[in-house]
Amino acid sequence: MIRIAVDGMGGDFAPGEIVKGAQSVAMEGLASIVLVGDKEKMGPFITDPANIEMVHTPVYVDMEESPSNALRKKRDSSVNMAFDLHKKGDVQAVVSAGNSGASMAFAIFTLGRIPGVDRPAITTLHPRIGEGISILLDAGGTVDCKPSHLVQFALMADAFASSVLGISSPRIGILSNGEEETKGNELTREAHGLMKGLDINYLGYVEGTDMYNGRTDVVVSDGFAGNIALKISEGVAELIFEFFREKMERSLKNRVGYLLMRDIFKELQRKTDYSETGGAPLLGVDGVCIICHGKSNAKAIRNAILLARKFVEKGLKESIKETMQDYQSLQKVKER
Amino acid sequence: MIRIAVDGMGGDFAPGEIVKGAQSVAMEGLASIVLVGDKEKMGPFITDPANIEMVHTPVYVDMEESPSNALRKKRDSSVNMAFDLHKKGDVQAVVSAGNSGASMAFAIFTLGRIPGVDRPAITTLHPRIGEGISILLDAGGTVDCKPSHLVQFALMADAFASSVLGISSPRIGILSNGEEETKGNELTREAHGLMKGLDINYLGYVEGTDMYNGRTDVVVSDGFAGNIALKISEGVAELIFEFFREKMERSLKNRVGYLLMRDIFKELQRKTDYSETGGAPLLGVDGVCIICHGKSNAKAIRNAILLARKFVEKGLKESIKETMQDYQSLQKVKER
Repeated sequence: MIRIAVDGMGGDFAPGEIVKGAQSVAMEGLASIVLVGDKEKMGPFITDPANIEMVHTPVYVDMEESPSNALRKKRDSSVNMAFDLHKKGDVQAVVSAGNSGASMAFAIFTLGRIPGVDRPAITTLHPRIGEGISILLDAGGTVDCKPSHLVQFALMADAFASSVLGISSPRIGILSNGEEETKGNELTREAHGLMKGLDINYLGYVEGTDMYNGRTDVVVSDGFAGNIALKISEGVAELIFEFFREKMERSLKNRVGYLLMRDIFKELQRKTDYSETGGAPLLGVDGVCIICHGKSNAKAIRNAILLARKFVEKGLKESIKETMQDYQSLQKVKER
Repeated sequence: MIRIAVDGMGGDFAPGEIVKGAQSVAMEGLASIVLVGDKEKMGPFITDPANIEMVHTPVYVDMEESPSNALRKKRDSSVNMAFDLHKKGDVQAVVSAGNSGASMAFAIFTLGRIPGVDRPAITTLHPRIGEGISILLDAGGTVDCKPSHLVQFALMADAFASSVLGISSPRIGILSNGEEETKGNELTREAHGLMKGLDINYLGYVEGTDMYNGRTDVVVSDGFAGNIALKISEGVAELIFEFFREKMERSLKNRVGYLLMRDIFKELQRKTDYSETGGAPLLGVDGVCIICHGKSNAKAIRNAILLARKFVEKGLKESIKETMQDYQSLQKVKER
């Protein structure tokens, strides 16, 4: 059985929701879980000890804490001890809904990066018109990127999309303010030049709308613009749901209409709900690491663990390693 | 009556939809319209000559043309001749749905900038949860911004929101990847330091979600991230409408539900439809200029003209001039 460490103390609803989510996976025998955190606080939520064990540490990183502070002073925190277990080979993946900056910092510090990757990328999965999903990276890991970082993001996403998600020859675009070559900013223009030389299905620039209309499979961005894309998406979905909610309360006709359409409202909510995908893989670290939304409930944690399991099974880490190795070899040949 | 020049040849549906939109405003005596463009092509769409006249030029800027090319070779284009009329004082505002880069380039070239403004900003208006609207700038005018540009955007938005839209003490935030001071990129961090010293209601960093949850009135961004925010918003709204459309076709129950809720679907569509606001003012040029979506139909053009009229009445240009003058005086005092 695949063994996964879960940061029991990370997230707005930790440890209760975290333990419950982990418990549901363990109980069904879908994975073997190691909960890392304060035993006394996590223990009461464990109802069935099958496939679940605890590793104790009273220290955890606060949601508001600065990542650099955590990195200096909290090596014995729940999230870093989870990465330690991964590093030692005791588990094959880590799931955390804690402070995402700190999780990323510890992942890099403890697991290390895959050779050829300068900056790991938080990679989010988005619904779109029609079938399939769109992949956005970096959704907030590295705000000030160099062109070479975007190139690495594209290569990692290519490996992830094809080997793990089964998308053949994934279409990859750089997020920009327009499709024309004359658009873009300093960063994207330089990255665009580099990207043309890669052995990937590179589309050129894509716009914000393309993330949802199915024109592209992968949207490559620096972590600043990527995070804005992510949060704006959340904001618009919330606006629309709130709009319907408010209208429901105002008229019986609307309520009846809503009841008839309830299934599709629920489906839409599922489609746009982060807790359905569970979490975002941190691509580029030497391991499998899923970063969850701070507001994760038990369902989100359950789905994140199942995602981690799938990524281990599909060889996420290995496929990125191979891709980066091939790229580096090619670069060396070119330099000769 | 306020006199407004409309670029009759700009936009995907020009000249037909443009002339029709202008016609509807003129016919109702809401403004006096000067249509600039090819008389032979625009003429057939004019059904009532009251309050509407034409200024002829056969030249126009293509939607795909590079702004710098247009600026060099097409001084006699419809959009620039509209700005010429504005510069001469013959009209009080310009509305164009043409190539937005070229419109912006000609606006700067012909009207000039308000003293103290280095870069004008495309300013879009967005619905949000509850009452009111959120203002985003720059939505795509200047992709590579300096911190001082963001400061100018904030000052212009403050004047626009308070004097023209009647928002008292508008709350202003910088669009970032998180609220904490430790977040942001190089640009926002420097701008954040400068912004604290301004005499505005400055909130600090805001996130993408805040544009829609009512936490802030103004979202300040460079044109690259701002355009991504704008286009991602369009993309998510399209995704959701398309989702409902597809479901409608699949079951009778859904169709009945939809019929009962039709009014609120329509209201939502209006709320998220660019053609309702009409267009985006280009703040910072020495005049009133509304940039419309390339896909503008007659309704969008009508609404853009009415918006231009409102901005002239409320003294948009004058209030921005005053604000920038005050700021410059203050800077000089500080430098002494």
